[in-house]
Amino acid sequence: MNRITLITPPNSQAMNAARELQLSLIKPAGSLGELECITVQLAGITGTIPSTVSKKAICLFGSDHGIYEEGVCSSPQDFTRRLMEVYAVSQTGAINILARQAGAELRVYDLGVKGLGQHTNIITRKFLADGTADFLHGRAMSPETVREVIAFGIDIVRDMKREGFGLIGTGEVGMGNTSPACACIMAGLGTRDDSLVGRGAGLDDEALHNKKKVILEALNFHADNLTDPVNILSCVGGLDIAAMTGVFLGGAVYCVPVLVDGVISAAGAMMAYMIEPLTREYMIASHESAEPAYVHAAEYIGLTPCLKLGMRLGEGTGCAIMMHVIDDAIAIINSMGKFHEL
Amino acid sequence: MNRITLITPPNSQAMNAARELQLSLIKPAGSLGELECITVQLAGITGTIPSTVSKKAICLFGSDHGIYEEGVCSSPQDFTRRLMEVYAVSQTGAINILARQAGAELRVYDLGVKGLGQHTNIITRKFLADGTADFLHGRAMSPETVREVIAFGIDIVRDMKREGFGLIGTGEVGMGNTSPACACIMAGLGTRDDSLVGRGAGLDDEALHNKKKVILEALNFHADNLTDPVNILSCVGGLDIAAMTGVFLGGAVYCVPVLVDGVISAAGAMMAYMIEPLTREYMIASHESAEPAYVHAAEYIGLTPCLKLGMRLGEGTGCAIMMHVIDDAIAIINSMGKFHEL
Repeated sequence: MNRITLITPPNSQAMNAARELQLSLIKPAGSLGELECITVQLAGITGTIPSTVSKKAICLFGSDHGIYEEGVCSSPQDFTRRLMEVYAVSQTGAINILARQAGAELRVYDLGVKGLGQHTNIITRKFLADGTADFLHGRAMSPETVREVIAFGIDIVRDMKREGFGLIGTGEVGMGNTSPACACIMAGLGTRDDSLVGRGAGLDDEALHNKKKVILEALNFHADNLTDPVNILSCVGGLDIAAMTGVFLGGAVYCVPVLVDGVISAAGAMMAYMIEPLTREYMIASHESAEPAYVHAAEYIGLTPCLKLGMRLGEGTGCAIMMHVIDDAIAIINSMGKFHEL
Repeated sequence: MNRITLITPPNSQAMNAARELQLSLIKPAGSLGELECITVQLAGITGTIPSTVSKKAICLFGSDHGIYEEGVCSSPQDFTRRLMEVYAVSQTGAINILARQAGAELRVYDLGVKGLGQHTNIITRKFLADGTADFLHGRAMSPETVREVIAFGIDIVRDMKREGFGLIGTGEVGMGNTSPACACIMAGLGTRDDSLVGRGAGLDDEALHNKKKVILEALNFHADNLTDPVNILSCVGGLDIAAMTGVFLGGAVYCVPVLVDGVISAAGAMMAYMIEPLTREYMIASHESAEPAYVHAAEYIGLTPCLKLGMRLGEGTGCAIMMHVIDDAIAIINSMGKFHEL
């Protein structure tokens, strides 16, 4: 995590050049809204205009969560493993389809999925064989594990940059993982407002009530230790959230734009932002998740999602859809006619 | 316009079949939000699932507006003609780029652009050679012209359906055309709330004040004649808005989904909806325009835009971006794995 000191602000000269170029295009100034902002941000991140995003990827982190035992999730826990197999074998998961549509490569990581063996198309890096521990009355994982997983996330961006990837989306799968995501966001905000706790994949009223109770109890149990992002992740986090924290940090270290997906990804983005606020300049929001904690995390970081699709699937599906918008923004700045050509 | 009687509700059997199919896909029910709704709507419109949208088009209507004379627009009026030439000749307008990105054909119609001659790549159908009349103290055009233009819009959809187009986006260009759009929406809502009047391409405070005054005066002048959509379009409309009204009606007559773009397109959609509320079932919203009247029209019709991009360019740019989302939705319902395959 020493590499975090390498993070610098984006290139303001390139950002100004992109702003100038936008003003020269045949349209009222600012009339393409977020599309223009995206090209300015990309210029700042890469230091060059016109921008190109040669290769795109979605990194999908699979892991299991001990808090599942507390009845916070309506799906069988082995859906984590079975979905990982779908992504790898039949390749007919939502994210397989949407990544293909976006022209993005899908990379699937097993950080600790119960019962999942080696697979072609899965990068196996089990930090904890069965996933995190139940964080209701103990840490989800040690601070050392958190640091290792974050470093792994940073390494992913370093290696992908070397491979020529210029845009990375973040996704996850793991039954029960809206609970650690929500707990991390509430811990980061220092709030105990349980209206931030959502229904995840579809809890009924009774199960939602229990989920709220579990998260509040866990936050109270760990109250004295929720002092910084590494400890928050250690107490109430997940392997997926920690890996994403690393990817967001890595985006800023290696100057690669990273897309924020839904609430779990937003929790990772928030932890990265708390470690180093400059990471925000390297993040691009995608969709506004239907999970209530999402908007609180996005507001805290200062991100504005462009897509309002009422989605709550995860997997990086929002990132994949947003990639079309980014491609469109790049095509505009690279190919539109200029006023002086009129 | 007799064809309007042919409009029927969408196919509820096909919609139910699409809902069933969505429930069988490997994801929590409803977790893909609007993507799921879009596939259900498309099934209802086309009567078939899985859906296919073989060919896509953007119809861009160019026309000039007499109300320009009242100082409601900050750009030179001949930008309408010059932009039409950009779309047709260098093909480097924003919509040229974004239509290409979406795999959509761009069709450009000259309904009455001052000084614009014949062009390859422009379909010339000048209803009024110099555009509409100044509607501050007289009708923009006759009710007969409105009916002709609407019928022309319906014909466009009929012909495109025959050519195999399955999805149509609506765009426009015409200096000053946010004024007739706003006036139509305010007339349709029966409101004189001038907070609905926006800055268009970028009016300063003084010019915005004048634009509000002009629109309110015009609405007062025509007050007794704003009795139905044809008269509203005749009094304070534009050739572009009337053509779009026809395209939205045509979408419902010929069972082709039509995308709503920004505030001018929304005004056309609102007029079509007032003529026949079933047209809504054949419309798909795209982006939330930055023009304040947009959300009022969208709410009145009952449309929820998925894209929040702060755009206010027109040309059909929002529709082009939305086409990616629709392609994604179709790919999901056609290709995702099913629970029973797990």
